[in-house]
Amino acid sequence: MKTGFIGLGAMGAPMARYLHARGLLTVVGNRTQSKADALARELEVRAARSADNFADCDVVAMCVSLDADVLENVQALAQVLKPGAVVVDHSTVSVQTARRAAAMLHEHGIGFVDAPVSGGVEGARNGKLSVMAGGDAEAIEKVRPVLEAYASRISHMGATGAGQATKAVNQVLVAGINEAVCEGLALGEKLGLDAERLLPTLMAGAAGNWFLEKRGGTMMRSEFAPGFKSAHMLKDLRIVRDIAREASIQLSTLELALADYGRLVDQGDGDSDTSALIKLKRGN
Amino acid sequence: MKTGFIGLGAMGAPMARYLHARGLLTVVGNRTQSKADALARELEVRAARSADNFADCDVVAMCVSLDADVLENVQALAQVLKPGAVVVDHSTVSVQTARRAAAMLHEHGIGFVDAPVSGGVEGARNGKLSVMAGGDAEAIEKVRPVLEAYASRISHMGATGAGQATKAVNQVLVAGINEAVCEGLALGEKLGLDAERLLPTLMAGAAGNWFLEKRGGTMMRSEFAPGFKSAHMLKDLRIVRDIAREASIQLSTLELALADYGRLVDQGDGDSDTSALIKLKRGN
Repeated sequence: MKTGFIGLGAMGAPMARYLHARGLLTVVGNRTQSKADALARELEVRAARSADNFADCDVVAMCVSLDADVLENVQALAQVLKPGAVVVDHSTVSVQTARRAAAMLHEHGIGFVDAPVSGGVEGARNGKLSVMAGGDAEAIEKVRPVLEAYASRISHMGATGAGQATKAVNQVLVAGINEAVCEGLALGEKLGLDAERLLPTLMAGAAGNWFLEKRGGTMMRSEFAPGFKSAHMLKDLRIVRDIAREASIQLSTLELALADYGRLVDQGDGDSDTSALIKLKRGN
Repeated sequence: MKTGFIGLGAMGAPMARYLHARGLLTVVGNRTQSKADALARELEVRAARSADNFADCDVVAMCVSLDADVLENVQALAQVLKPGAVVVDHSTVSVQTARRAAAMLHEHGIGFVDAPVSGGVEGARNGKLSVMAGGDAEAIEKVRPVLEAYASRISHMGATGAGQATKAVNQVLVAGINEAVCEGLALGEKLGLDAERLLPTLMAGAAGNWFLEKRGGTMMRSEFAPGFKSAHMLKDLRIVRDIAREASIQLSTLELALADYGRLVDQGDGDSDTSALIKLKRGN
């Protein structure tokens, strides 16, 4: 099965490497061409210069940033992929974007799976992402060998858009947990508690969570290398807000997180890990 | 080592049983006498009718509800325990209460350890609590065999009060995580996502946490048997608010949780598990 991969960022690059390790990767593409060229050279695959280079692919996986990027890529791929091919999108975008992408491809007999992921850069690097997939069962079965290359869990959540709906729920949890952890640890600092003793104690009880385990130590040392960039969190939360509004549900934790990450990005921390939120909670 | 245990609630009763299993339990006490009588009969230990019944104890452990309960018990024990005995308090109370209790006992040559716990009723039932201890090292070493009976982790966090300070941090995390999980799952319901598929998918990624794992399934079935009662959460959060004010730190997630648990208790859900918060998030 010939697979292309578009979007070689902090998540996409390790995912493409796992595809290569399974002998599935044929061609890589990236907005900044030099990145695609470098990875293609290293892995001895093709670097795409245009959508045409994906024409022979059975599957094209994609992990980009914005809704517009997804739609632009999908529009180009719709013109070149053969009927029966499937595009699988790992980006976090709106449910509507997923539906538009599916419709654009469907016209040409091409399948689409919305398949956002969770697990962070760690999950991408160790090939243990959680994939939340929306689309028809046939398309998902077709791309399963691709997803299995970098996922520890693949959940078929429902029709097109159900993957993005699940990711929205995931991001409400992630953002709210970040708020709780950053706020709690800022309090711990003010109370003079020792990080070395505090963090394992918190992890051992009902406060235990992924973010505390992965980011507790670094944030208390004020190390904010991403990880997951605050600007990306803000983008995701805006998507979630739209989804929540459409579903007529009030989400107060989400509103708090939106305000906080908006402030964080405004003060120049957009490229910092989301754990930089502790700076606001410390009051500086 | 003769040990007494006061407060045989959802946490205290299983803790006392673990002490008994290690051959450490001598006497049990409880505000509602019939509970102490029943457990004492079952375990073939003494049921206390007054503080005098603890006079021969080397250690008295306590797990009660309110600051006033702790101080009342400590005042009575100070009159009867022998010098060198240690009182260990597992209740969640203020740092000041811990310091007052320590001072009252110190006058009589009796030690004190503030040792709130995390891990919920599950942690108490399976003997895997996380204990956050404050006090001098000698007193903590003395009570270590007692703590080891029901704890998987014992952290000496600092001087008297440091255990309660750590618990305050723990409860900021717990309350904020509850907000995030209840809000996210309420959104998931509105979006029509299937709980059976949603919960393991969320657990597998960066949203993973203790509360989701233990309470996600029950709350989506609207089962709210405690667990940890909402009224107790509200009490704890009020203690945390006082601690935060004294430390001059603004905690917005905490304020949100205080308002939400206040509403929940007002509407008659004080005896429901904290996961009943999803009712507010659903908008009903």
